[in-house]
This record gives sequence, structure tokens and C-alpha cells, in this order.
Amino acid sequence: MFTEQDNEDLTRVGPGTLMGDLMRRFWMPFLLPEELPGPDCPPIRTRLLGEDLVAFRDTNGRLGLLDRYCPHRRVDLFFGRNEECGLRCVYHGWKFDVDGNCLDMPAEPANSPLRNEVKIKSYPMIEWGGVIWAYMGPKEHMPPKPPELEWGLVPAAHRNIGKRLQENNFAQGVEGGIDSSHVSILHSLLDPEKAGQPFRQRQKAIGGTSYMATDTAPRFFLRPTDYGMRIGARRNASDSEYYWRITQFLLPFYTMVARQNEESPILGHAWTPIDDYNTWTFTMHWNPKHQLVERGKDFDQSNVNVPVFNDGSYRAINNRSNNYGIDREVQRLRSSSGIEGIGLQDSAIQETMGPIVDRSKETLGSSDTAIVAFRRMLLAQARKLRETGALALPHQTELYRVRSAAIVLPRETDFEEGAAKRLLVA
Amino acid sequence: MFTEQDNEDLTRVGPGTLMGDLMRRFWMPFLLPEELPGPDCPPIRTRLLGEDLVAFRDTNGRLGLLDRYCPHRRVDLFFGRNEECGLRCVYHGWKFDVDGNCLDMPAEPANSPLRNEVKIKSYPMIEWGGVIWAYMGPKEHMPPKPPELEWGLVPAAHRNIGKRLQENNFAQGVEGGIDSSHVSILHSLLDPEKAGQPFRQRQKAIGGTSYMATDTAPRFFLRPTDYGMRIGARRNASDSEYYWRITQFLLPFYTMVARQNEESPILGHAWTPIDDYNTWTFTMHWNPKHQLVERGKDFDQSNVNVPVFNDGSYRAINNRSNNYGIDREVQRLRSSSGIEGIGLQDSAIQETMGPIVDRSKETLGSSDTAIVAFRRMLLAQARKLRETGALALPHQTELYRVRSAAIVLPRETDFEEGAAKRLLVA
Amino acid sequence: MFTEQDNEDLTRVGPGTLMGDLMRRFWMPFLLPEELPGPDCPPIRTRLLGEDLVAFRDTNGRLGLLDRYCPHRRVDLFFGRNEECGLRCVYHGWKFDVDGNCLDMPAEPANSPLRNEVKIKSYPMIEWGGVIWAYMGPKEHMPPKPPELEWGLVPAAHRNIGKRLQENNFAQGVEGGIDSSHVSILHSLLDPEKAGQPFRQRQKAIGGTSYMATDTAPRFFLRPTDYGMRIGARRNASDSEYYWRITQFLLPFYTMVARQNEESPILGHAWTPIDDYNTWTFTMHWNPKHQLVERGKDFDQSNVNVPVFNDGSYRAINNRSNNYGIDREVQRLRSSSGIEGIGLQDSAIQETMGPIVDRSKETLGSSDTAIVAFRRMLLAQARKLRETGALALPHQTELYRVRSAAIVLPRETDFEEGAAKRLLVA
Repeated sequence: MFTEQDNEDLTRVGPGTLMGDLMRRFWMPFLLPEELPGPDCPPIRTRLLGEDLVAFRDTNGRLGLLDRYCPHRRVDLFFGRNEECGLRCVYHGWKFDVDGNCLDMPAEPANSPLRNEVKIKSYPMIEWGGVIWAYMGPKEHMPPKPPELEWGLVPAAHRNIGKRLQENNFAQGVEGGIDSSHVSILHSLLDPEKAGQPFRQRQKAIGGTSYMATDTAPRFFLRPTDYGMRIGARRNASDSEYYWRITQFLLPFYTMVARQNEESPILGHAWTPIDDYNTWTFTMHWNPKHQLVERGKDFDQSNVNVPVFNDGSYRAINNRSNNYGIDREVQRLRSSSGIEGIGLQDSAIQETMGPIVDRSKETLGSSDTAIVAFRRMLLAQARKLRETGALALPHQTELYRVRSAAIVLPRETDFEEGAAKRLLVA
Repeated sequence: MFTEQDNEDLTRVGPGTLMGDLMRRFWMPFLLPEELPGPDCPPIRTRLLGEDLVAFRDTNGRLGLLDRYCPHRRVDLFFGRNEECGLRCVYHGWKFDVDGNCLDMPAEPANSPLRNEVKIKSYPMIEWGGVIWAYMGPKEHMPPKPPELEWGLVPAAHRNIGKRLQENNFAQGVEGGIDSSHVSILHSLLDPEKAGQPFRQRQKAIGGTSYMATDTAPRFFLRPTDYGMRIGARRNASDSEYYWRITQFLLPFYTMVARQNEESPILGHAWTPIDDYNTWTFTMHWNPKHQLVERGKDFDQSNVNVPVFNDGSYRAINNRSNNYGIDREVQRLRSSSGIEGIGLQDSAIQETMGPIVDRSKETLGSSDTAIVAFRRMLLAQARKLRETGALALPHQTELYRVRSAAIVLPRETDFEEGAAKRLLVA
Repeated sequence: MFTEQDNEDLTRVGPGTLMGDLMRRFWMPFLLPEELPGPDCPPIRTRLLGEDLVAFRDTNGRLGLLDRYCPHRRVDLFFGRNEECGLRCVYHGWKFDVDGNCLDMPAEPANSPLRNEVKIKSYPMIEWGGVIWAYMGPKEHMPPKPPELEWGLVPAAHRNIGKRLQENNFAQGVEGGIDSSHVSILHSLLDPEKAGQPFRQRQKAIGGTSYMATDTAPRFFLRPTDYGMRIGARRNASDSEYYWRITQFLLPFYTMVARQNEESPILGHAWTPIDDYNTWTFTMHWNPKHQLVERGKDFDQSNVNVPVFNDGSYRAINNRSNNYGIDREVQRLRSSSGIEGIGLQDSAIQETMGPIVDRSKETLGSSDTAIVAFRRMLLAQARKLRETGALALPHQTELYRVRSAAIVLPRETDFEEGAAKRLLVA
């Protein structure tokens, strides 16, 4: 039984919350480099773990992430002047560097003690792997660098990173990312020639294989790891073989969808909490071996990424206000949802559950085995941290050098053993 | 004295409320057939008595009204696939029939006990009399059919039914519907040739009679019935006669405006609660004797019905955001309100009282006699139900076969006796 | 330390609040005559000190300010008919004069006792000095006329009055109006030819003098008066002289910016509370000696006044939703803020602090000396009123005949003595 209190504990991320404290022990991706394009570019408003912030890049290119509001009279620093290695509040000119030091107070006397006393809240940022990361926790616990997720390690031409706003709690995103069973339904395409036949006979092969259409009830096997867990979803392949889809969950909010085959790109997500009700959904595609090739070959951007407004909001162009552009005729004939694009299909179901789904009202089945395990693991990690002050898992950055995989194995073979080579970054 | 608690009791309609429990003993009109045009049409979101629901028509044309959210993981069933005699959630494919039975769980093993355990909340619907009705109460108390209101009994060509959204509590609508005295003011037309003369000398004849302009202070007589009450509004006609306008109130939220004469169509309303703050206003015109003829003859649709957006919202095109299109020059010269259309005039005053008017701040006069009686009756019915578990009035469907009327009677004649023949459906 | 309770006490203005009670002892400007252009003009919705009201001008030109909602059934009197010396509710025709007397109840019998009992809440209004004023306090304490602020005394051609909506509490406005130190930063223009040089070397002369750019840290001197306080902001001018900018604060919410010189117009503000979160900002320019001349000479309307929508809302055309039209290129090269117009610059920083800034989180310096004194004085006045029932200051209307000034004085001269002649209306 997942209580309302469990739900609060799982989803609230503000300062002092159980989950917020856990998140604050990790580097988190939240901006794309294009948002802070160069030295002294305009500052931008942002929000992370429920805190109002302003981000900028200083004259020397250093990244700064400060409290949104000037400590003097609480003016919005978005309006500030970004110049001469600092952000200057436009009201009385107090100026701060990327470390939160106050460099100037033009309206105060030269000998004012305030000059040495005042600091603004600031958080370190790093640009790495095609995204900008922040760390919002205690300095003494700061990991030396972001987790070595493979999409950050490969050359830039080998990866594609999309970002979109989702107006729901992060946990609904993670739960979608590790839920191998919904792929057979939500994302399935239909054969229009078979219109009129039963739904399940009209489903086309998914992800280059027919197993997902023929066996829609995978059995889940969970293997805790030092970074989170591996999830094996087992489907029948032949009398002597199983088809395994192996998904990764990496603390605190990364997921990797099972890879189609050893040549195809890998698909992963980061579900970064803006606040309790909003999430930055990052969609990563990468190919360890070669550059991503053109659309429609091994990488169809429009399918998994979501077209967003080009105004800094990263809001989907088709969104809740137009029911995600659902086309009932397409739904009738060609796709399960009538919504275009896998990413937008996920947004549609995750957002319309409500900003925080009431998990105490769910009816969970065996298809939800991984979801149950994720909730339990994340709550256990957060409660352990609260009790002991230390993370329960080692969470070194090199532990994140893993991949997802899909593989057909003899029925007697353990999936982790059988797929061992495929699950590690070379 | 009408207390704040009385006001709460009168207006709140959600599950477990006093008035909500009463409403749940009645069939309620809430959709037009055009909203569910045929078998396997797209499901629509709806809301009734504060509950989020989804409505659809299945492959065999049966009507279904289900909880908006799938019991599995709380996904919005609006996105569902309506096919093969059921509505299938697009996330993991759970499928429900119109009775709430779960027909399929593709992601669960064939032997899952969930298959027999899971039901979704469902309510029966009926299409009758040009509208679609729902019953949301206990099965054992369900009336066999909707009330036999005359507009439902006449042939379709004899009636016209309009629907509009009002953003206020249902009781403000009912109170407008039984308030015979406001007709003389709010809905009156002015003679532009008499501009400059006192307001009350500029009013034109209303409803084919001058009595309402010459006697603006009717005296009210209330007669409780087995379905609600008859309200006689008496005005002076001659030294020996009274002009009676007889309005009907029928439990729980139907009203009939006094009929102009025995040839004219009758005008009635249903004020169906969407939730505490929103109402479906149904405007019914019907002529028992013959088909409704063209506009401007005996039935001016644009006057009583309200032009609404054609996007399923039934929101008035002129609405609160533009002050209902009030034209101050028209108000000065030609009509009391400057707002076009009787229906929109009613919406304007009912909505701008606020979503729930604070009845403890009113100053009631003799013109409000019927309003006071309505509140008392509805509260008494609801409290009796709460105490005894049974409705205080018989409320058989055939009791609703009544009409409103307007009639001139000798002063000594009781209005119910004098108008008896006109008040019953033949 | 300014506590959260202090902040509540300072900012809340509704009926029964500490500050609301103080405000209700003063005539307050809130409408422009153009809003009620003539006899029997359409009534307008307004809101003052948190009360919903409707304002109109009757057939004889008298001004009326009534409760927004009819005492009968709480209908919005905005829809009322303004005619025959009163405002008639459009629902049942109750009619009220400017004093709140009920003149007609057409739907009530001629002998109804209600006719004499019913009154509607009404407040007196006066048109004087180019604006319309209201008094919302106890009748027995009503000052005979509005305060004799000089902009009200001069001929109409000598003044210009602008009005705009600000979506923040009034106190943030007052604090901006008496804050002489922010002028050097927020409102400064930059020399585009000096781009690349340090910010403070790029600032142009402000207000016809270079002292504000060369000495950005004025020292503040406060002199309580019988109407509020005089604030002297002292900057270095030469070895033997100071440059004084003398700002006025007049109870309860008037400010006057230091005058440029003895020929230039004076700039003053009224910050009238609509409610806790909204303010009417009045910007007054006046020249005691001669008519205001054309734009760009001694009076640049577009700079200090803010272009607003012409729909009765007085909402700024550039506003929070577009970040006040900030132009980052202009900000980089030509002006401190990149926002066009002094008035809009003030709106930008005052609104984006939030509707009520959390003063318990500020870090105040010597530049905030006047702000601290203002808060203390206003709270003291309000608390004294609460304790004794009487205002602590005499607050006769003639006390308001004062001016602001800017003046260079020998270092040994007291600023009030040195500027005495300039500070009084001749």
C-alpha cells in the first residue's frame, strides 16, 4: 500500500524535503548550452528543486547560478546587467560574481561593513556532455564531476539532446521511462489495412521486433545495483528462448530505454525536477560507435523528441491546451494514441494524470513491478540519507558507465550474465 | 435568516454533500446527442456533480459514463480508444465496457486475479427527449426512467433545446427561472421615441401583455405539489380581474416560465450542476400542438437561447470577459440591460453575483417570496433524505407532466382551479 | 529588524486592518475625470482599499461611489442604468442615489417597509485638482477637502497627470518614490561611445547634473514634519559645498522627487491602494510658474509617464508578461535597464519583487535610511490611531503646500534652512 505520506515523500523536492535532500547530493542537468550562449549573455530566469534562480555566464565565460532575488531589496536579478565579471542588480547596483560574492555597492559608503558581509546564494554549475549541470547540496558532499553517463562521454556528433517542459512531477516521468510494458500499447502503430480487425491484431512490429506485439505481458526481474537498478522485462520469443529488454534506472532520475540492437542508438532520459509540479525532460540519443545519421535512418528526431516553442520556455507546441494535437482519425487507423511522436505521447499521459498523481488510488499489477521497485528504492535512499546523513549507495561517477540492451537469450540463461557485455560502456 | 451554513447546504453538490445526495436520486440531463454522435465516436470529458467523468458511445451505440481516470495508473481516459464495445486506456490498454467491467489487460498475465477484481466507476445514461441523462445515485433507488417533462414527450420537431455553460452555482439559475418579477425590469424593451421620459413609462409590453409593465410588483402565491411547487404571480388586470403568471418548479432543478398564451410555445429550463461553481443551462422550447415554426414567428431562438462557441465548451460567445457585449447606447434607448437576448441577460446577472452568491448578505422583499420558498423546499427535501434515507416526495416520473400558464381570472377565482386545465399535459 | 508581522501591518489595507484604518482618514485620489466624463455616463467598476465598488456621475453631475453589489440580491451594479439621478439595478430595478438612498423598488408593494429601511454603502467623492477623490472613513472625521498639494492648486495647463496600474502593494511604490539613491543606477543613461569601459564611467549626467553620477552614495537626513517628512540626500559637490536633493513624503502615500532646478517642473506621485496587491500610480508633473511646454523641452511625458491601454484598465502596454519590453542591446549600450521610460523602469522593479515583498529577507544599507524611516513613521501613525482613535499628526489640508528641491549649499548650511524658500508653495 502506497500511502498519501509516501506520495508526499516521493514527490516533494523543495528545500528540506526528504526527496529534495537526496536530489541535492547529485549534479543535475537542467540547461542546454544554447540558453547561455556566450560571455556576458543575458541572464535567464530558471527554477530548480523549487528554488527561484537566475543563471548567467560571466565575462570570462564562467557559469553563475544565483538566487533570483537581490539580497538588498529583493529585486528580480533577471533585469540585471551582466558585465565585468558579475551580475549587477539594476535597482541600486549591487553586483555579484558567480561565487555569490558582492563586488560592488555603489550606493553605500566606501567603508560600509555590508561590503564584506553580504553574499548571495549561489550554486556551482558545470558544462559537460552537451548540457549544463548544477549542484545544490552541501559543498563538502559535492561529487567532483557529473555522473559519467555515456551520452556525455561520446563525441558531440554521436549524440542528440532534446529538452522539453513537462507540467508534472518528475516521478511520473521516471515511471514512464522504466515502464517497458506500456511501449506495446501507447507507442504502437497500427496497420490501416486491418481496420475493423481487433486492436491487438492490428499492431505493427515495435522497435524492430514483433515480440512486443505478440507478448504484451512481460514479466519483470529487478536487480539492484550500486547506481540504481537494472530491470529485465522478459517476453516469450520461441519455445527455448526469451526476448529480454533491459532498462536502466540510475539515481536519482535517469532512465535508459532498452536498445533496439547493437548498431542502433541508445535512448535515455533525465527527468530533472523544476519544482514539485514541473519537470525538465531531457531526451538523449547517442550512438557509441558512430555519428548519428540523418533522420529516418537510425535517428528520427521528430518521433522521440518533441517540437517545442523557441522562446526559452521549451514548452511543447502541441500541449495540454489542444489535447496534444490528438487526431482521432489517425488514432482510429494508424496509431494507438492518435498523438504524433513517442515523446509527446508520454507527455500526454504523464501530464493528464495531474501534476502529482494520487498513487494511493492506483491499482497496480504485475506490469508495474519495476515502478513499485523504483518507488521503494528512491524512498529507501532518501530515508537512509535523512537518518544517517550519508548516501546508502556509493554513487561514484564512473558507476554510471552502463547501457541498456535488448537481447534474445536461451531460457536457462540469466539475463544479466547473458547480456553482461552489452550492458557496460566499452 | 439564511445562514452561511444554509448557503453551503443549498449549493454544494459533490459526493457526500447534503444537496449532492439529493441530486443523486434523480436522472439529470447533461449532454446533447450531438456530443456523442454515433457508435465508437471520440470520448468526451465531462463533469457532473463535481465528479470528473468521460462519456462515450460504444460499438453497439450504448452510452457509457466512466470515471475520468483509469483505475490502473490514473491516466485520463479521454485519450482512450473507443472500439470493440469498450473504452481502452491508451497507456497499458486496460479496457472497460459501459457498465464499468474490465474486458482486457494486455500487460497482465492471462491468469492475473486483477482481471476479475477491477471495475471502474460507471453511471447509467439514457437518451430520451432530445437529451442524454445520467443517474449517479444508488442502483436500488434508480427511477426506471427520466421524469416525463412535456418537452421530452412531444415529437422532436415540436421542441428546441439549447445548452450553455454558466459559471455559477445551479441555485442562482433556478432562482432566476422562478422569479417572475425580474421579467418586468431585466428583460424589458424600451420605446426609443420616449427617450428622456421616466424609465417606467418607456417600457414596452412584455410577453404579449401590458400587465407586466403596468404592475411591476406581483404578489406571489405558493402551492407545494408532489413534484415541487406551483408559483402564482398575481398582477392587477382590471377592477374585477387578476392577471396570473403560473410558474413551475420541479425537483431538483427544473423550471417553467409562464406561458404567453395557449398557442405559444412553452419555455422551460434545466439547471444541471456541473460542480459547485458551474452549471449546464438547458433552455427548452416546445409547442404541444404543432411544430415550432420559423424564427420571429412563434419562436425566436436568438432571443432566449444564447449563441455559444462550437467547440464542445458551450461557452457563450459574449460572456463575462466582454461584459456580455453590453451596448450602453442600446441600454439608454432600447432595452433595459443593453445586453442582447433574454438568456444572456440572465447569465449576466447570475454569473456576476459571483460563483456562489453570499445569501446571508441579501435583503429580501416580497418579490422574493418564491425564491425563499424554493430554498426552504430544496433544503427540507435534502435534510429529510439525510435523516430518513428516503425522498420526502413521491417523485414518480409521470408527476412531471405539467405546464406553466398565464391567464386572466376573476378576482374571486383560485388560480390553480381557474387554470387547472392549462396546467396539465393533455 | 522588520518582522513578518510588521510587513503585514504596513501593507494590508482592507476594512479593519491597521493601515486600512489609517488610509480611511484621508481623501484619496483614484479616478481621472475622463473615467466619468459626464452626467449619466456609464458606471464603472472600481476597487479601493480592497472594497469592490461602482462609480458613476448622476444626471446632475454629482459623483457617486457605491457598493458594487445591490443589497437586494447581490447583482453587479456595473450593469445598472444610470439615469434620473440614480443608479438602477438591472435585475429588479432597485435604484440608489449618490448618497446611497434607495429611490425606487418597482417590484415591491407601495407600502413596503423596505423602501425606508434599505440603504447601500456609499462614499463621498470630490473632483479637485485634476483628479477624483474618495473618502472612505467615518463621516465625523472627514477632512473638509483634499490636501492642498500644489499640483491641485495650479491651473490645469500647468499640470499633467498620468495614471497606471501597478500590480504590487502601495508601499513598494512609496519606497521607490523616496529612494533618491536608485536614480543613479536604475534610471541612468549610458554613453554608447564608451562601451567596454567600466559601467560607472559610462553613466551620463542625470537630471541636469553630474553629481549623481560622480557621487552614487548619498547620505540621508530625515526631518519629520506635520505632514510626513522631508528627506535630504546629500552628495559631494565641491570641497566646500554639498549637492542636496530634498524629497517629500506626505501622509499617507504621496511623494515628491527632488526638483531639477527652479524653472523645471516638479515631479510627484500618489500611490493609491486598490487592494493589498494592486496600486494606482499617479504621476504628477506641474510647473508653478508657467504652462507645461511641449515634449522634450521641460516635460517629456513618455519618459516618466507610462503608455497604458486605452480600455479603462490603465494597464501598461509593456508589462510583466513581456518583461517590460526589455531590450538587451539597449541595456548593453545606452541605458542601465534596457527598459524604456523612468516610470516603467520603476514598475518593473517594484512589480517583480512580488505583490508584497518579504521585507524580513532584505539586507538594508545606508541607502535605505529614508525607506526605514518611512516604514517606521507610517506604522507609528497607524498604531497611534488604533490606540487613541485619533491621528498623531494634525494633517490639515494646508500643510501639504510644499515642494521638493535640489540645491547646492555651503557645507556648513543646514539643508532645510538653506532651501527653506524653495520648499514652500508661494
